[in-house]
Amino acid sequence: MAGLKLLGLVASPFVVRVRMALSMKGVSYEYAEEDLKNKSELLLKSNPVHQKVPVLIHNGKPICESLVIVQYVDEVFAGPPILPTDPYERATARFWAAFIDDKLCPAWIGILRAKAEDERAEKVTETFAAIGQMEEALAKSYEGKAFFGGESIGYLDIVLGSCLFWFEAFRRMYKVEIINSSKVPLLAAWAERFGKSAEAKELVPEADEAVQYVNKRAAAAAAAAAK
Amino acid sequence: MAGLKLLGLVASPFVVRVRMALSMKGVSYEYAEEDLKNKSELLLKSNPVHQKVPVLIHNGKPICESLVIVQYVDEVFAGPPILPTDPYERATARFWAAFIDDKLCPAWIGILRAKAEDERAEKVTETFAAIGQMEEALAKSYEGKAFFGGESIGYLDIVLGSCLFWFEAFRRMYKVEIINSSKVPLLAAWAERFGKSAEAKELVPEADEAVQYVNKRAAAAAAAAAK
Repeated sequence: MAGLKLLGLVASPFVVRVRMALSMKGVSYEYAEEDLKNKSELLLKSNPVHQKVPVLIHNGKPICESLVIVQYVDEVFAGPPILPTDPYERATARFWAAFIDDKLCPAWIGILRAKAEDERAEKVTETFAAIGQMEEALAKSYEGKAFFGGESIGYLDIVLGSCLFWFEAFRRMYKVEIINSSKVPLLAAWAERFGKSAEAKELVPEADEAVQYVNKRAAAAAAAAAK
Repeated sequence: MAGLKLLGLVASPFVVRVRMALSMKGVSYEYAEEDLKNKSELLLKSNPVHQKVPVLIHNGKPICESLVIVQYVDEVFAGPPILPTDPYERATARFWAAFIDDKLCPAWIGILRAKAEDERAEKVTETFAAIGQMEEALAKSYEGKAFFGGESIGYLDIVLGSCLFWFEAFRRMYKVEIINSSKVPLLAAWAERFGKSAEAKELVPEADEAVQYVNKRAAAAAAAAAK
């Protein structure tokens, strides 16, 4: 679509959220992959505060931060609603989306960034704690539903589901099983349903993308250290 | 109003946001002050994840996290809109509200919690950096407007304005002037307008409340240490 451009990164779960939202609305757009080692002028100009992807540029105007973008996409484009239409359910979805970004994501991304084993172990513990709270949420607020969004994928499914390919990569790389079916059976069943959905199959990258991203970064860091 | 109860704390800027939102909608409600040293069963049951105020309980159902609550209040009650009605302006307001909670608040609250002078100095630097970015936002996205909300107070005014009585307390306690008119003239002019608004006069506490809160905590900590 003329007038709609997404600045992204294949391995970013935050970008996946926006791609899924745009897909749910049936909107086409131009996609530009960013190189985080050499960010484009457009990215720096469009998101001067955080200088991060995703940025959605709509008719020349930038929207930044994945949760803000997904809500914007939901409000601006016709198509099935992404956020729940009931205000209380919407508040609940926003609460858990904030929890995912404030508690869960810093924990699991911390596993990746940890420089020492004890730091990694601490972040693993934090990740399991946050995942345990998500399991409780599923049991209480979303009892009997196939997805957080009800019978089909919605806001919270996108927000959490966008992280799943990284969780699979962690299982392979670190033997850390973030969503373990014996510990969090509801989340595990949800993750399986999510993975089988048309939206996820189309837009959530394979775990290989995350593994490659990690290996590439490690190689670049090693090359820099060897200089 | 029967069916509407707010669990709060006078000195909490996050609670002030909710009180201002409810006031803008002309909604009456029951208010219960929490004792953070001895949280009520209702608070623990209503917000098991964070165990924090504010919690708004509407017809028996709890809503937690101030930004989520303010949006809920805006969507559920009639009255003047709190968030901008234009989707792009709404996205911009949500972006800056997230910035305030993710960058500015951890910085200024960090000044309060700092245990050493160098840590305090670091948090002061972070606070000034975040405030400088808010000044740029005012210059670019909100040029010529009396308030972030336009001619009257809106979402972002509530989100930032709720912190101002703490900034004044910091000026008195630490000689740290977070909003200094020579450094951030647009924000300083905005803060003056905000302070004169009927909403702020009615609902934003005096800086004394913040000073007393700090002194009470310090006294309690000293008493605990002396035991």
